Amino acid sequence: MRESQAIQRLRRIATSPAALGLADDTALLDGLVLTHDSIAEGVHFLPSDPAASVGWKLVTVNLSDLAAKGATPEAALLSLALSGDEVWDMGFLDGIEAACESYGLALVGGDTISLPPGAPRVFGITAIGRAGERVPLRSGGKDGDVLWVVGTLGDAASGLTQLLADEAASSPLVDIYRRPVPLLVPGQILAPVAHAMMDVSDGLLLDATRLAEASGLGAEIDLDALPLSRAFIAEHSADLDARLFAATGGDDYALLVALAPEQDPLRLSLPQGTTIARIGSLAAEGALLSLVSGGRPVPLPERLGFEHQGHQHRCNSSPPVADRG
Amino acid sequence: MRESQAIQRLRRIATSPAALGLADDTALLDGLVLTHDSIAEGVHFLPSDPAASVGWKLVTVNLSDLAAKGATPEAALLSLALSGDEVWDMGFLDGIEAACESYGLALVGGDTISLPPGAPRVFGITAIGRAGERVPLRSGGKDGDVLWVVGTLGDAASGLTQLLADEAASSPLVDIYRRPVPLLVPGQILAPVAHAMMDVSDGLLLDATRLAEASGLGAEIDLDALPLSRAFIAEHSADLDARLFAATGGDDYALLVALAPEQDPLRLSLPQGTTIARIGSLAAEGALLSLVSGGRPVPLPERLGFEHQGHQHRCNSSPPVADRG
Repeated sequence: MRESQAIQRLRRIATSPAALGLADDTALLDGLVLTHDSIAEGVHFLPSDPAASVGWKLVTVNLSDLAAKGATPEAALLSLALSGDEVWDMGFLDGIEAACESYGLALVGGDTISLPPGAPRVFGITAIGRAGERVPLRSGGKDGDVLWVVGTLGDAASGLTQLLADEAASSPLVDIYRRPVPLLVPGQILAPVAHAMMDVSDGLLLDATRLAEASGLGAEIDLDALPLSRAFIAEHSADLDARLFAATGGDDYALLVALAPEQDPLRLSLPQGTTIARIGSLAAEGALLSLVSGGRPVPLPERLGFEHQGHQHRCNSSPPVADRG
Repeated sequence: MRESQAIQRLRRIATSPAALGLADDTALLDGLVLTHDSIAEGVHFLPSDPAASVGWKLVTVNLSDLAAKGATPEAALLSLALSGDEVWDMGFLDGIEAACESYGLALVGGDTISLPPGAPRVFGITAIGRAGERVPLRSGGKDGDVLWVVGTLGDAASGLTQLLADEAASSPLVDIYRRPVPLLVPGQILAPVAHAMMDVSDGLLLDATRLAEASGLGAEIDLDALPLSRAFIAEHSADLDARLFAATGGDDYALLVALAPEQDPLRLSLPQGTTIARIGSLAAEGALLSLVSGGRPVPLPERLGFEHQGHQHRCNSSPPVADRG
């Protein structure tokens, strides 16, 4: 079963208004924003990743979902599968603790299980945030909205590529792959004015398609406008291939925001150093997703991002990128 | 790392009052009771278990934790690992849907991931309940309290034993192993008067030890008083060995309740057919756990229940019983 089929089936079960039609990565209950993300060894992280970075990443990918709803981190429940390797498990919990402390997320419960011998590690977190005055959904995009990306794209996918070539690789891009930073403050500042917002976790093109689809619109993206880091450009250049790589890699934990054209986010008091780029627009006419570069249309790549399809190839045989929703 | 070590480490992280010191299976936030339980193939369920029963069990073991706090089911987030076997996955979701519908639990979100090829299936649910007027904790037991068990013990462990001998086995005990019934209504009725309450999921003796420890008391259990079903007695007899099996097997999803001695639960309007048995007491003096039968002390068995210790043997090599907290 593909992920999209599973979600179709789940939508028939999830009919409560709190489920937001499963069109978002989060649910809304009593002013709380709820999200759950799981990660599996060999799919979402590499067996060679340091344990503390895996714990950090599990917390922060969940916080990224809260960031996209403008929520303030409140509490988390951890699903902990003991690996039988005490040093690894302790390192993992160190990473959990560091991320929870960094972002004011209180660990309040969860479950400790064991897995059969030889099973890949699997962990999950349910993160709960306090909703702000407005919770922007994926579905709120309007005809004529401008699409913005907060953060840079492609860094994590590039870091993963380095690690797949050499598991001892060490670079700023590897660090970004292993230690995402959730954009909580930008999310909180943008939420009151955003028509739609989501985090970019499965690849910009796939996630923009999801936002456009949920909003009943089409998205046009100018590949020339993608925010790329210096480290990324040094590694890949900034040509069309590099831009398509950045737009489909995933694991970015950037924010994709739809704002009214008259809304200028550069006038909002975003934290110093925040990268924000105007990358496209939403329109009632046209394809669900269209790309341009140098003012000309660019055909869609075969793969827009990462979608789960039953059992995945392991990290070392195919570049897997987290389905962090 | 053993489960108890992990929990010790987690307690140093989980310092928020909402965490209840991780002494309970649940957390408390804004009048909501939160719990998370995960299950793994080969540890908590058998590869041969019907997919729909696995989905049912995942929901109901979580509901059992809500039942023990007297909470009303409200919402759930599902961590779904696609297995690559569409028929199995659809059956699993049928079971999820049936259990959610049966108990008024709204599926509101979650995550869909894939696992590496050949990995055992792993699923999790975060269940959220609305707290009643009182939420009885594990730690509330008082000197002199009477311990009661709602439900019967040993049935599921007996059903699992049958399945381990013959995976095609079919019996009422097998059904109980596969399709637990959460005691939501008894939990709601008992919560306002219970000093302490928890569900019995890892074995009565282990869970009673946990309740006694959290309450700073000792528990004495009269093995002759354990509630056993007719099906269990027909299979095992009701001798001391059978009673020790029932008291340590786990997967019962019964409720363990500490009530003041003057509180008679038989006078409460429990649903017709509810099994409730007075099985012991709490005392400030004496061992953390002591057992009697025929008025005489019984030595503690080597294993009080099921505690996770890193990677487990698979179901077919050692009887694993769910750590359902």
